[in-house]
Amino acid sequence: MVTGIAGATSVAAQGKNEPIQPITPAKVTNPGKVELGKKLFFDPRLSKSGFISCNSCHNLSMGGSDNLPTSIGDRWQQGPINSPTVLNSSLSFVQFWDGRAKDLQEQAAGPIANPKEMAFTHELTLEVLNSIPQYRAEFAKVYGNKKLDMQLVTDAIAEFEKTLVTPNSRFDQWLKGNKKAITAEELKGYELFKSSGCVACHNGEAVGGNSFQKMGVFEPYKTNSPEIGRAGVTKEDADRFFFKVPTLRNVELTYPYFHDGVAKTLEEAVDLMGRLQLAKKYTPEEVAQIVAFLKTLTGDQPKLQLPILPPSQNNTPQPKPFN
Amino acid sequence: MVTGIAGATSVAAQGKNEPIQPITPAKVTNPGKVELGKKLFFDPRLSKSGFISCNSCHNLSMGGSDNLPTSIGDRWQQGPINSPTVLNSSLSFVQFWDGRAKDLQEQAAGPIANPKEMAFTHELTLEVLNSIPQYRAEFAKVYGNKKLDMQLVTDAIAEFEKTLVTPNSRFDQWLKGNKKAITAEELKGYELFKSSGCVACHNGEAVGGNSFQKMGVFEPYKTNSPEIGRAGVTKEDADRFFFKVPTLRNVELTYPYFHDGVAKTLEEAVDLMGRLQLAKKYTPEEVAQIVAFLKTLTGDQPKLQLPILPPSQNNTPQPKPFN
Repeated sequence: MVTGIAGATSVAAQGKNEPIQPITPAKVTNPGKVELGKKLFFDPRLSKSGFISCNSCHNLSMGGSDNLPTSIGDRWQQGPINSPTVLNSSLSFVQFWDGRAKDLQEQAAGPIANPKEMAFTHELTLEVLNSIPQYRAEFAKVYGNKKLDMQLVTDAIAEFEKTLVTPNSRFDQWLKGNKKAITAEELKGYELFKSSGCVACHNGEAVGGNSFQKMGVFEPYKTNSPEIGRAGVTKEDADRFFFKVPTLRNVELTYPYFHDGVAKTLEEAVDLMGRLQLAKKYTPEEVAQIVAFLKTLTGDQPKLQLPILPPSQNNTPQPKPFN
Repeated sequence: MVTGIAGATSVAAQGKNEPIQPITPAKVTNPGKVELGKKLFFDPRLSKSGFISCNSCHNLSMGGSDNLPTSIGDRWQQGPINSPTVLNSSLSFVQFWDGRAKDLQEQAAGPIANPKEMAFTHELTLEVLNSIPQYRAEFAKVYGNKKLDMQLVTDAIAEFEKTLVTPNSRFDQWLKGNKKAITAEELKGYELFKSSGCVACHNGEAVGGNSFQKMGVFEPYKTNSPEIGRAGVTKEDADRFFFKVPTLRNVELTYPYFHDGVAKTLEEAVDLMGRLQLAKKYTPEEVAQIVAFLKTLTGDQPKLQLPILPPSQNNTPQPKPFN
């Protein structure tokens, strides 16, 4: 579906009053940093087992997610929460479902040392990287004489992640003035998405990702998940079940849905959101229209050459997958 | 280390009498098939959990191996044997350490349905693929009207794997006549590799992969591994501890070594091979020379664009990571 982009007048006219803005392509100012960050993102030696990398749960072949209800961690531990997509995560106002990290750099340090995820330590991460001459040289090239520490590791990962935006979705083409980029059915879905109130939370460039909202406004959300959301960070009872509104960009690729990953299909998710958040029971036709609209939010996926990781050396700490 | 290739005369003169031949780059005759095979190779939906793909244990960022002693399978089961590299596997005369598959296509069917590996079934694999319109379309484009069955799935994977050769190693450049492609130390290592008998088994284009040999000729190999090798296939007692000689191409990247993955370094592996297979105790200098030679066998790694996998549909069988 290749469609041209109409002129600037039309862009201004159509896009200006919409609650969703097109994604701006990433500008890479330091390609060396991005390339280094990509290697780290794909390197399972940042885990205790030597088996789990960032890409294991934020799989860039699969919408930047793992498409599982909750993730698989070290020794196959069941994670507590659905893995959010890394795509367009730079557009989120905070990171994690509960917003406990202020930015991507802070986020990146978490899973490496989380005993339920990669189960490693920051000390061993640095020992691994420092033992590998190609990594040392690459850090030196990008960061000069700075000591190789977790600040640099997470900075490089974050710089890579900032490139993982997905511009040029059909909806963005429509926003920019190409009326033919979406169908009449999809447009109906968008109109309904606006008129029934979804845009109150799902707005902006990421169609979400810019506020905490309570899961279950008009009805409580029934779940077996023990997650309490924002309250776990603020310790305020009023924040119970408040979660960061997820981005709807590429939502066609990031199933299953919600923080507990229980909604298997977009239809289920839309129906439930209507009832719980808007006190609205969509008809099957309305659900289908909104789902059709949501599928227009799939953008160009990052084109990435698979990194070749520099080999471990004799003094590199060994992975410990089974002990 | 970019080095030119000398003229044809020199190639013929130098390469002809050597027991190792340069790797021929892969010729892709059907790029659609290769691209489809690449998607399947990277698709964790070919496993019960939705988490393990071919690339999990034959990681193309890591020399086509997992760099673990033995692999991690479904529910973190410990595999019985070291994951052999997929790089240059098309040059092996048979597949698996015990040669139980005659070619890559036959091999590819194994791990998908092995309860200790991907733990899926062929039936569910086909149900998953058939439920995804983009996969159906891609199979139809490549294979015409043929029914989507495991023959096609494994054919596509095998066609992709055939492209995973690593030509242009420094040693191959030397074989082709560029005398400066390897150092004097590396050349000494090669001469020793030949004169002390390593080439009896490690020869040909893959520097191995073309015979079964007994692990432990002059001394028994001490291991906790219960694997008996070729005898498991032939049921002949005489074949106990016979394994396919592994390729030494990219051996710098495919640590740890041997079928049980117990040798952590090339130095250990060379020392042990000398004693067990050749009744020869190499001096530390000799070990260092052979290791230096072995590291010249690292070739150009396949340049792969990470595939974008088509999304599951509402009727796609769900992965079962925890049940």
